[in-house]
Amino acid sequence: MSWSLHPERALPSGELRPISREIYHAIADLPLVSMHGHVDVRAFAEDAAFPDPAQLLVVPDHYLVRMLVSQGVPLPALGIPPMDGAGPAGAPLETDPRAIWRRFCSHWALFRGTPTRYWLEHELIEIFGVTEEPSAESADRIFDEIAAALERPDFRPRALFQRFNLEILATTDGATDDLAAHRSLARQGWGERIVPTFRPDPLLHVNRPDWAGQLAALSQITGVDAHSYEGYLSALRQRRRDFRDAGARATDHGHLLADTTELSAEEATRIFAAALSGKVTAQEAQAFSGHMLFEMARMSCEDGLVMQLHPGSLRDHDRAVARRYGHDKGFDIPIHTEYTRALRPVLEAFGHHRGFRFIVFTLDETAYSRELAPLAGAYPAMRLGAPWWFLDSPEGMRRFRESATETAGFYNTTGFVDDTRAYASIPARHDLARRIDAGFLARLVAEHRMGLDEAIETAIDLSYHLPKAAYPALPH
Amino acid sequence: MSWSLHPERALPSGELRPISREIYHAIADLPLVSMHGHVDVRAFAEDAAFPDPAQLLVVPDHYLVRMLVSQGVPLPALGIPPMDGAGPAGAPLETDPRAIWRRFCSHWALFRGTPTRYWLEHELIEIFGVTEEPSAESADRIFDEIAAALERPDFRPRALFQRFNLEILATTDGATDDLAAHRSLARQGWGERIVPTFRPDPLLHVNRPDWAGQLAALSQITGVDAHSYEGYLSALRQRRRDFRDAGARATDHGHLLADTTELSAEEATRIFAAALSGKVTAQEAQAFSGHMLFEMARMSCEDGLVMQLHPGSLRDHDRAVARRYGHDKGFDIPIHTEYTRALRPVLEAFGHHRGFRFIVFTLDETAYSRELAPLAGAYPAMRLGAPWWFLDSPEGMRRFRESATETAGFYNTTGFVDDTRAYASIPARHDLARRIDAGFLARLVAEHRMGLDEAIETAIDLSYHLPKAAYPALPH
Amino acid sequence: MSWSLHPERALPSGELRPISREIYHAIADLPLVSMHGHVDVRAFAEDAAFPDPAQLLVVPDHYLVRMLVSQGVPLPALGIPPMDGAGPAGAPLETDPRAIWRRFCSHWALFRGTPTRYWLEHELIEIFGVTEEPSAESADRIFDEIAAALERPDFRPRALFQRFNLEILATTDGATDDLAAHRSLARQGWGERIVPTFRPDPLLHVNRPDWAGQLAALSQITGVDAHSYEGYLSALRQRRRDFRDAGARATDHGHLLADTTELSAEEATRIFAAALSGKVTAQEAQAFSGHMLFEMARMSCEDGLVMQLHPGSLRDHDRAVARRYGHDKGFDIPIHTEYTRALRPVLEAFGHHRGFRFIVFTLDETAYSRELAPLAGAYPAMRLGAPWWFLDSPEGMRRFRESATETAGFYNTTGFVDDTRAYASIPARHDLARRIDAGFLARLVAEHRMGLDEAIETAIDLSYHLPKAAYPALPH
Repeated sequence: MSWSLHPERALPSGELRPISREIYHAIADLPLVSMHGHVDVRAFAEDAAFPDPAQLLVVPDHYLVRMLVSQGVPLPALGIPPMDGAGPAGAPLETDPRAIWRRFCSHWALFRGTPTRYWLEHELIEIFGVTEEPSAESADRIFDEIAAALERPDFRPRALFQRFNLEILATTDGATDDLAAHRSLARQGWGERIVPTFRPDPLLHVNRPDWAGQLAALSQITGVDAHSYEGYLSALRQRRRDFRDAGARATDHGHLLADTTELSAEEATRIFAAALSGKVTAQEAQAFSGHMLFEMARMSCEDGLVMQLHPGSLRDHDRAVARRYGHDKGFDIPIHTEYTRALRPVLEAFGHHRGFRFIVFTLDETAYSRELAPLAGAYPAMRLGAPWWFLDSPEGMRRFRESATETAGFYNTTGFVDDTRAYASIPARHDLARRIDAGFLARLVAEHRMGLDEAIETAIDLSYHLPKAAYPALPH
Repeated sequence: MSWSLHPERALPSGELRPISREIYHAIADLPLVSMHGHVDVRAFAEDAAFPDPAQLLVVPDHYLVRMLVSQGVPLPALGIPPMDGAGPAGAPLETDPRAIWRRFCSHWALFRGTPTRYWLEHELIEIFGVTEEPSAESADRIFDEIAAALERPDFRPRALFQRFNLEILATTDGATDDLAAHRSLARQGWGERIVPTFRPDPLLHVNRPDWAGQLAALSQITGVDAHSYEGYLSALRQRRRDFRDAGARATDHGHLLADTTELSAEEATRIFAAALSGKVTAQEAQAFSGHMLFEMARMSCEDGLVMQLHPGSLRDHDRAVARRYGHDKGFDIPIHTEYTRALRPVLEAFGHHRGFRFIVFTLDETAYSRELAPLAGAYPAMRLGAPWWFLDSPEGMRRFRESATETAGFYNTTGFVDDTRAYASIPARHDLARRIDAGFLARLVAEHRMGLDEAIETAIDLSYHLPKAAYPALPH
Repeated sequence: MSWSLHPERALPSGELRPISREIYHAIADLPLVSMHGHVDVRAFAEDAAFPDPAQLLVVPDHYLVRMLVSQGVPLPALGIPPMDGAGPAGAPLETDPRAIWRRFCSHWALFRGTPTRYWLEHELIEIFGVTEEPSAESADRIFDEIAAALERPDFRPRALFQRFNLEILATTDGATDDLAAHRSLARQGWGERIVPTFRPDPLLHVNRPDWAGQLAALSQITGVDAHSYEGYLSALRQRRRDFRDAGARATDHGHLLADTTELSAEEATRIFAAALSGKVTAQEAQAFSGHMLFEMARMSCEDGLVMQLHPGSLRDHDRAVARRYGHDKGFDIPIHTEYTRALRPVLEAFGHHRGFRFIVFTLDETAYSRELAPLAGAYPAMRLGAPWWFLDSPEGMRRFRESATETAGFYNTTGFVDDTRAYASIPARHDLARRIDAGFLARLVAEHRMGLDEAIETAIDLSYHLPKAAYPALPH
């Protein structure tokens, strides 16, 4: 029997199956709204063929890499090179994509029960037409099949965009990015479909090694000297305008803590100056980054950019891995994250502002029912983002709906937001979210807590209307 | 088709349905024991007609108000006036109850998946006989229907008390309340059915603006000068006696933290004096409030009043809303709450005391399996209260049973305790809890972890015998 | 109808039943691998008959004792004597095992919905052939039945070992234990089947009252003067070798916190000296115990002993109970436990070491999806232990699989590890875990997230191969 996807996968079993199937069928073919992604915009601007299967599906996917590493496969054996000057890799660097692919396929069993397995099944079968399950034995044949597909024009990024039924996709772009790729896309008529997102993290963390360089880049690209606190704010404000003019709808902020405490102008100025002279403490830098979230919220009230906050990941838990192989290698680990007090400054100041939209994500599920749903269920500016990263999974999404809905309702959530750097996984992720929502709603229907007509309407809202409404287009 | 309640709503579907139905039928008609409520006792003493539908069902319900606010409806548009001298409301004050009702009905979809929706359906259909779903279109007709009912004598508070099948209802009363309404009820033969609860929060938080006034009122009503630490303790002790004499069975304590650390008499005296002279710090006030929980426990050992603790809500998260519109407007947000260390002083001192009963609630679900069930499953004095506030919901109650039962068992919980200021929602809340418990027990039966006869006996205990036993009548 | 165990107990109901039954049948009879137990090794060395039913099943079982205590049964009424010089017990000491047994049987309803009930049903019916449910009425007959069985040779510890289908059982042994019982077992041919585990907690907590005595014992048994920091490390290293030579495969560490922060040699030496002179602070002792976890990990890299960490239990919450009746009386209460930062020192230093295996348990379920699964899903050295203590229960194990699998997969967990001092409960615990895993896997199959063949293979791995692989035999 050929390897295939069951049409009713990830729907609940038993008496909930027919109800969830009916709900799912009403939303299965809705266009995808992908407002928070990490695909490199240049892939679309250049629209070149993707490289080999390993470079497309294995090497850049930190979910996949970390699972193989956790079972003893060294990073270099997956084609991840040590950085220049980082010393010996500890294992020979694999340069043969076919060997990397074989290594992955022979460990297929590791992914049982994980969303990575679910997404990859979808990608291999639906996108590449693979008909046998990955294994040491089948690895080469699958490799050849995918490699052949990647040479075809209908597997170029923009062709896939159409095939994926994407309506709009947001990329994530550094605050000092020149937006050339976005301008080029706009000239080619893609400006409404691929939009940038303003991500200023490196500029808001004044004790990171690259801060000085970022500040120089910010000064250069804006023509505003950002080496004073006032200049820095002006330059950030201008860059937000540039992004907005380039079609951006949102900013994105990845901080360790959710803290948004405003500092006095004097204190902010003082810390900024200390950072400039290289004498800032870790505590001051932390306080400054929280303060800058407050400032970003204030600017959002002015310019209308939606503010997204993704706190709670301790990046580069293994610092030696980061030094040797770089960031995003699977060693970012969540921490307990406090929201009630941390978000109070921004919410008290701007939580009722008509022009402010604040979308909050979490890696700490305990905050759903305790803090985030109560906050999103009270402040008009706040929306609760979709389950993120480790939680963007069947059980994770189910727990989110079960924990958040009763207090926040459906309409204080954003609907589905994928958050991926794996382009080919976007359809799988949206499809999975729709199936899980259909299953959750089916239970409400079966327990007579909601009518089927309402469930279908809600499912359509969660899949399509809510994400669109959460990130509105701005006049520019 | 007319709008109606499905008789098997909120029961699990599939093979668990018939089992849960059988369990539910054994408990559906048991009298309601409502030992923790916030209905104003004067409603019963006066037994006047309730005002219009908006004033009964919308304006005072903070669940409902916060949901509408979260979607952009300003508080004044719901008939909530700014307080005297609080400045402009920011939106015109709606004074037409019909307009408020329309506003609510036109946002009906927001409540999908929430317990508010579930309770309101029950209230509208069961109590008021409404036959169409709220919507912008149906709003006026429903308003007229309810308004007409409210004029009828069988919709007065005491008539509803009978109709609701209430056996006993506890109100919550300030420690300086004169208990006149309760005395009046007692004279009219209602003294065994409506009882007060001693709530001294404002007296135990010595840095609140109203503390001095509370202290004066305490002195006056007791004839004991409460302006010394010793006098204060004596006066509190006397007031507890007064409440007990008026039929009270319990005290209730809403604190930010669960801390119960005893201070030395010297330290307590010192902080009390500092508070009198207006020079107390926030930290001292916090310590004093924890110390007073210890003192309240000690007094409970003496007078037999059950001690209830409801910690973990950061009241008035948005201070501007509180200043302008008052408390309890939906802006109370839970925080992470620690119990293991916080309750140790009281439990070590009195946890084995024969005369002490300590009921603990939580807004932080993470404490169920980790802290609260282990504590309730060890100390004889402690019982675990029912899911509270945001957690008094189908999924919240299900998670409570799933998380707490395996360690605490059923018999270290209080059974169902509603905690509502919405009088008309009491039957809906008890009924929902019975359905969820029936569903949970049905799964244990279906998985052969419990016999059906045991499940039915347990369900009866949870619905009726346990709440009665948790709050025993005291000789007076 | 005779009291009996349903063959499909603890399997999910409905359409998942037949799938889970098929998975369960594939694993039901696999041998038991019990690598983390607290049965006293002398029971096996002596192989004497167990005493009466109360001494076997009631008195030493802290789950059972705490539940009866929580409902007002005093500890002495359960045959637990006050310690010498501890003063009055507060209740007469029960010395009649039959009376203790009656007391337990008459409270049978308290255990509804708890794993204690589930385990005891299994033990009474499967092991002792009891055919009626415990009650006040049946207590004497059941007592007689069990007492008669205990006199028979096939109820001796080693005979039960065979009957239980145990392949290997690890005991837990103090670091200064002479291992005589283990040597005796080895001489009798049981050395491969019953192995010791190295548990040095009292030596690593330098402010515990028994630390000085432990240090003297360590010096004596090793012949190394452990009264200097260097000597102490050497003696510990030597004892680990002794344990390894005696067949040990692992160490076990029960700490309040998961902290593993390394101290400088100077600081460690200084604190050790302060402890020797009795002048160590609680904070220093805490820091030293964290440091010693780091040292234990370093030694594990050298000698290959698997390192097990069980943090997060605040032992002897009620200190008066501990003083009067001793430890392990049901008053150990979990606390919130942080892992991401706490384990960073050990994981950064040794997390990629080929010879290091680090198994982490938790009593704080919130860490599963947030911290532990991400860590175990990245570092090759780390494995996530099975649900432990209060969480070794149907709902607890289900939540574990649902929360941890999507990020850690199945293969970064250890499979089932029982953690019991109740010998007769071992088969029940393994059987229950197999049923719950079968049920979890059945849902994945029913939702087309995994094939049935894969589910069966995974179930076999979780029940048998993973625990064996997690604790490999060491060459000695």
